[in-house]
Amino acid sequence: MTSIKDVARDIEMSTATVSRALRGLRGVSDETRERVMESALRLGYVPSPSAAGLASGQTRTVAVIVPMVTRWFFAAVVQGAEEVLRERGYDLLLYNLAGDATARHRVFATSLLTKRVDAVLVLSLKPTAEELDRLGRLGRPVTIVGADMPGWATVRIDDRDAAATATAHLVSLGHRRVGYIGGATEGVLDFTAPTARLDGFRCTLEAAGIAPAPELEQDGEFTIAGGDRATRTLLALPDPPTAIFAASDEMAMGVLRAARELGVRVPQDLSVIGLDDHELADYFELTTVAQPVQEQGRVAAMQVLAALSDGDWQPTQVILPTHLVVRRTTAAPARQPSSRRRT
Amino acid sequence: MTSIKDVARDIEMSTATVSRALRGLRGVSDETRERVMESALRLGYVPSPSAAGLASGQTRTVAVIVPMVTRWFFAAVVQGAEEVLRERGYDLLLYNLAGDATARHRVFATSLLTKRVDAVLVLSLKPTAEELDRLGRLGRPVTIVGADMPGWATVRIDDRDAAATATAHLVSLGHRRVGYIGGATEGVLDFTAPTARLDGFRCTLEAAGIAPAPELEQDGEFTIAGGDRATRTLLALPDPPTAIFAASDEMAMGVLRAARELGVRVPQDLSVIGLDDHELADYFELTTVAQPVQEQGRVAAMQVLAALSDGDWQPTQVILPTHLVVRRTTAAPARQPSSRRRT
Repeated sequence: MTSIKDVARDIEMSTATVSRALRGLRGVSDETRERVMESALRLGYVPSPSAAGLASGQTRTVAVIVPMVTRWFFAAVVQGAEEVLRERGYDLLLYNLAGDATARHRVFATSLLTKRVDAVLVLSLKPTAEELDRLGRLGRPVTIVGADMPGWATVRIDDRDAAATATAHLVSLGHRRVGYIGGATEGVLDFTAPTARLDGFRCTLEAAGIAPAPELEQDGEFTIAGGDRATRTLLALPDPPTAIFAASDEMAMGVLRAARELGVRVPQDLSVIGLDDHELADYFELTTVAQPVQEQGRVAAMQVLAALSDGDWQPTQVILPTHLVVRRTTAAPARQPSSRRRT
Repeated sequence: MTSIKDVARDIEMSTATVSRALRGLRGVSDETRERVMESALRLGYVPSPSAAGLASGQTRTVAVIVPMVTRWFFAAVVQGAEEVLRERGYDLLLYNLAGDATARHRVFATSLLTKRVDAVLVLSLKPTAEELDRLGRLGRPVTIVGADMPGWATVRIDDRDAAATATAHLVSLGHRRVGYIGGATEGVLDFTAPTARLDGFRCTLEAAGIAPAPELEQDGEFTIAGGDRATRTLLALPDPPTAIFAASDEMAMGVLRAARELGVRVPQDLSVIGLDDHELADYFELTTVAQPVQEQGRVAAMQVLAALSDGDWQPTQVILPTHLVVRRTTAAPARQPSSRRRT
């Protein structure tokens, strides 16, 4: 059987270098790595990375737990994380929960334990106390993306601030009757963002002297269809809103569809603002609050890599900035809402 | 150090059962697996799945190579594959090439070799001869999704037939001047579908007695922006088409945007048909030829699992059916194209 020594002799390199190249460790140039691989393939060397993992104590694999990989946001975060991990020679083990509570339980209760990984990224999930306990027992770096979890390494945006930016934009245009479409604050895909966004919306209206109106807050389930349904409810009110803030761009796309089908003109009759800067936001000319998405995946991956290379590394909470992107779905209200006409 | 024996004694099970549960092998109920995990966690047992992998000769990991995970189609195929793999206790190692030739080279040249996996799924890439050679040398089951590769296990649709269905729908409505928006047939994201789809388009027109018109065939790069650009080129022709077949729904969305901005009414002035049945096709009321997407991922995963459990398993070529979905973007031509008026 071909050994590392045979490969080293073949290409006149040290066995240490060949070993490092085969184990995917740093300090080996791409060119060297490729020569090693070429020789290994040609000589029929069968590497045993599991054994290499045992020897170095590392599997060079990072688990990423994602609620639903078919949703643009999660796929973009995964892409950002994978890019950084691949550059550093780490592989990405993908656990896609697909909204399935059984899958979630299995991943946290068994998969993470049986598949030893060097680190874990958790995307847009608020782990339960039991799940946090399991993550903690792994004794491995963990970074949580998109949730506010004190004591844990996190990467996120300031959801409250982003929602305040969106709401303030509508208020500054003169809107006083503003609808909000958010998402359930519980469930299998729970994360902390929905609560923070609703809070940012409410506080901004309050600061502008606008009285709370519970009927203007609707659940859009963070989907296009949900945004569509919530909009029909809002526009059927006796005193409908002149503007809607949808807490995700996908829900805002649902608002636009409902408006189109109901013959409500955007932005003349209804202003619409989202939150994300989805890849299709430009297509819809949607005004939105942009968050860096792939960047959150990249920073999360860098966090766990830093933790792996530095034993004294302390979990940090990284908050990435958001910004308003004004396109064509927001404008000053053409009509005064009936609530103001009445005064 | 806690051993498997300690866990077995704790829950009064055989060490064989505990070992199977910890290694994620079949024949262990979820309930048993959970009891084993709970005990292992409580007693502080640190499993060594790498060692387990060496012992059984399996890593219970399947590599999935995907051109770009942020594209809906690929994410949906990954989701389908992950679902089947997870059910059977396999994990999914994700290699996302993100349109990067260096990444592609590294994955095929080194990652697959250093990270030993039980099987490989390749999505919508046509591997080069060198890549096929490397895949073959792995000695592991490989399934290719979305490409026609004789001699290899594949899962795909009949792209030629799907394109013929779309084109025939337009012809049956009375269109004689039909534009085609496809994609480059080479490049880092090359796969065999673009060529087959163009072929299906051409043959259907020819069978209907419609003369070829090279100016009506445009490159839309399989993106929304590309579909938009190609449409502007087509509609600026002296004799523009009355209908456009876009070889993907994302390009068809670009057609719809260009038409909207140019004041061209769909379907009155221009019929549009896509291919995919993208999750947003219904939103756009887009007529399209639907292909099963998650299903292709599921079948590909089942293929490699079948190969892993049966040494005599032969690579098969699975072709999944497509079907026409008529929505509101296609209709009979209102005007006769000038080429017919001239006769």
